[in-house]
Amino acid sequence: MSNVFEVPQAGNDLLEKAEQVRLASIKISQTENKERIKALNFMADYLVKNIEEIFEANNEDYKNAEKKGISKALLSRLKLSKEKLNSGIEGVRKVGDLADPLNQAQIKRELSKGLILERKTVPIGVLGIIFESRPDAVMQISSLAIRSGNGVMLKGGSEANLTNTAIVKALKEGLHESGFDKNAICLLTSRKDSMAMLNLEKYINLIIPRGSNELVKFIQENTRIPVLGHADGICHLFIDYEANLDMALSVALDSKIQYPAACNAIETLLVHKDIAPFFFEKAIPLFNSNDVKLIGDKRSVELGIKYEANVEDWQTEYLDLILSIKIVDDLNEAITHIQKYSSKHTDGIITENLATANKFMNVVDSAGVFHNCSTRFADGFRYGFGAEVGISTQTLPPRGPVGLEGLVTYKYFLKGDGNIVDDFSSGKAIYTHKDI
Amino acid sequence: MSNVFEVPQAGNDLLEKAEQVRLASIKISQTENKERIKALNFMADYLVKNIEEIFEANNEDYKNAEKKGISKALLSRLKLSKEKLNSGIEGVRKVGDLADPLNQAQIKRELSKGLILERKTVPIGVLGIIFESRPDAVMQISSLAIRSGNGVMLKGGSEANLTNTAIVKALKEGLHESGFDKNAICLLTSRKDSMAMLNLEKYINLIIPRGSNELVKFIQENTRIPVLGHADGICHLFIDYEANLDMALSVALDSKIQYPAACNAIETLLVHKDIAPFFFEKAIPLFNSNDVKLIGDKRSVELGIKYEANVEDWQTEYLDLILSIKIVDDLNEAITHIQKYSSKHTDGIITENLATANKFMNVVDSAGVFHNCSTRFADGFRYGFGAEVGISTQTLPPRGPVGLEGLVTYKYFLKGDGNIVDDFSSGKAIYTHKDI
Repeated sequence: MSNVFEVPQAGNDLLEKAEQVRLASIKISQTENKERIKALNFMADYLVKNIEEIFEANNEDYKNAEKKGISKALLSRLKLSKEKLNSGIEGVRKVGDLADPLNQAQIKRELSKGLILERKTVPIGVLGIIFESRPDAVMQISSLAIRSGNGVMLKGGSEANLTNTAIVKALKEGLHESGFDKNAICLLTSRKDSMAMLNLEKYINLIIPRGSNELVKFIQENTRIPVLGHADGICHLFIDYEANLDMALSVALDSKIQYPAACNAIETLLVHKDIAPFFFEKAIPLFNSNDVKLIGDKRSVELGIKYEANVEDWQTEYLDLILSIKIVDDLNEAITHIQKYSSKHTDGIITENLATANKFMNVVDSAGVFHNCSTRFADGFRYGFGAEVGISTQTLPPRGPVGLEGLVTYKYFLKGDGNIVDDFSSGKAIYTHKDI
Repeated sequence: MSNVFEVPQAGNDLLEKAEQVRLASIKISQTENKERIKALNFMADYLVKNIEEIFEANNEDYKNAEKKGISKALLSRLKLSKEKLNSGIEGVRKVGDLADPLNQAQIKRELSKGLILERKTVPIGVLGIIFESRPDAVMQISSLAIRSGNGVMLKGGSEANLTNTAIVKALKEGLHESGFDKNAICLLTSRKDSMAMLNLEKYINLIIPRGSNELVKFIQENTRIPVLGHADGICHLFIDYEANLDMALSVALDSKIQYPAACNAIETLLVHKDIAPFFFEKAIPLFNSNDVKLIGDKRSVELGIKYEANVEDWQTEYLDLILSIKIVDDLNEAITHIQKYSSKHTDGIITENLATANKFMNVVDSAGVFHNCSTRFADGFRYGFGAEVGISTQTLPPRGPVGLEGLVTYKYFLKGDGNIVDDFSSGKAIYTHKDI
């Protein structure tokens, strides 16, 4: 992979930008909730004011991309329609409606007379975000960063550079108009700079990559800055022998075809051997009529699946209308397969047996464990978080779909009236540890 | 540093042990709170039963260490007195008194009719813990791991190998007696194995290093497993010009001398120029009479400090009766110095001016920000957490002193009755997002 990406040293220009964002992030961390909401509205207003300029830039990007022969899928993501832009601008205002993630008291405790401990949420500092070509992401990410009191360094796909530049210009004007330091948002336009960010652990507190699996993996392996995100999304659905057959068919189909390119779509279906003949009888024509290519293990092929799977199929995120299928002897074999191949994103079970469901949900160590519903629900908006920063497949928090709470941390505030530890050693003072 | 430590490939023996711990950790994650408390009591009982064997092993370790000419400080940490062992055993039972960190519901929400989302705390999995020679740490760490439903791989200082082996044998007997898989606790005795652990990201979910700064730094830089802990503890206290002078003297002294080898002791005192002459007049004789060597910047030397500081002093964790002092012009200079040199552990201010205190506490980005009290309070026991796993100086949670909650994570449980996402796209179903 080292021939695809590399991490260069940051140039002086980048270091200066990073320092500016860091200083701006300290200022924004001191602002009131109301001011941040006001800033979001100004940011939206200036996007509206600059709308023609943004469209022009986008047209230019689009023309250049067409010339370069970029794929249709990418072109369609790049294209900023009126609807897309308006809904993006509306999204900026909507982020203002979300609950303030800052200054939330998690602990308030009297440690001793006159000595009060508080743990409160605070911004993380500076976010480094590397994302794909969709230029609407710039608005969404910037508004989430500002809402949570963070500074942000952004790098989008280079084919959208002109569009992103125009959008960021408008966002900065909005920040400035509301009295904020416009350096809180910084756009990088070269791949060299975005990769050099990975070395800036003194300036950047969290990296959020939203791109190809290869890019995310490379970032995870090449920075000491914490990374929020996921590379693969290899999700499984296990059809237990005690499943409701109609439900199994409907949920399996939804989990695969509702949006096959999403990380929460399933790649592998595990089917209990006792239900397999009945399930396959209906599932094969159902998936065929929805253009899903089925690839099965030996036993599945014996039951009518056309293509035989090899070990790579269990490790592949197809992101396409392809589904691998394996017949398993029992719950344990299903769990063992999932433990081996799951990317720990989301794995589900269909069964009417509650004990079976509970065992599955307790033992499978994925961010989401689902019973009798589609894996496609694994999403910040569907979970009711209002906005999604990304989905994390790491074990430690933040895990799963991450909303604004993933963009804050906490710190401990201790206020006393001259308290010293020696008084507790000598017995002159005692701990009360009383939550207040 | 690569000539001091290196990360070898794990041998088959270590891989087998890791797999056993992983399997045991899955079993223990399924146990009830009551069972885990019972297991802790059995572990304590078996320590009592094996007490003679543990003392014998400790005597042997001590004799070998003496022969090798190990330092007095290390010898005293190695020595397991009757009191130390009894209090360690009592500690194992006390961990059973702490609140259950598992199965705590953080979110319970109806996403739509019949579709219920829960976010609950779950164990992390397998902890890898590398610690110094104190053999009592084995009891403390193992009991915290079991309490939180995790498996644990431990590596203590090699000079305590016999003692640690005897203690772990007793703990495993206790686990077994209570029906738990004894492989949930695994002791490693070679440095090679403990370093090879850093490559075991498939088996180990969190590394907690408790050792020298060099060891911790090496680990942080040489593993992709999340690391909980801190290398340096460079803590500051800023004496503002509006400080109560007596309080400033008392808190500064306590923050330095109450236990100078602790990570939460201060290394640098920042003194506002307007209070410096009055403060120094009393502080110099006070610190002198407590054998604290004072090293100051140019202006401090002009005011009577004997030794002049260089830039290295601001970067040094003395862990000793040495204190560096710098005179600053104002709050901003104090904050700038802290932002540059603090290890983000704990930094405090002494002032009677609330606005000044608030600005300091909000802008200084350390895990603990203290007003008018000693930095020595930065500690899990003093915060009322009951037990401390370690202190983390990273920005993202867990941050600061970490109790049992640092040993758990969460996952999302979604239960439905056949719900599919397509019904929401087509308008047949709607999101209710109602917390229940």
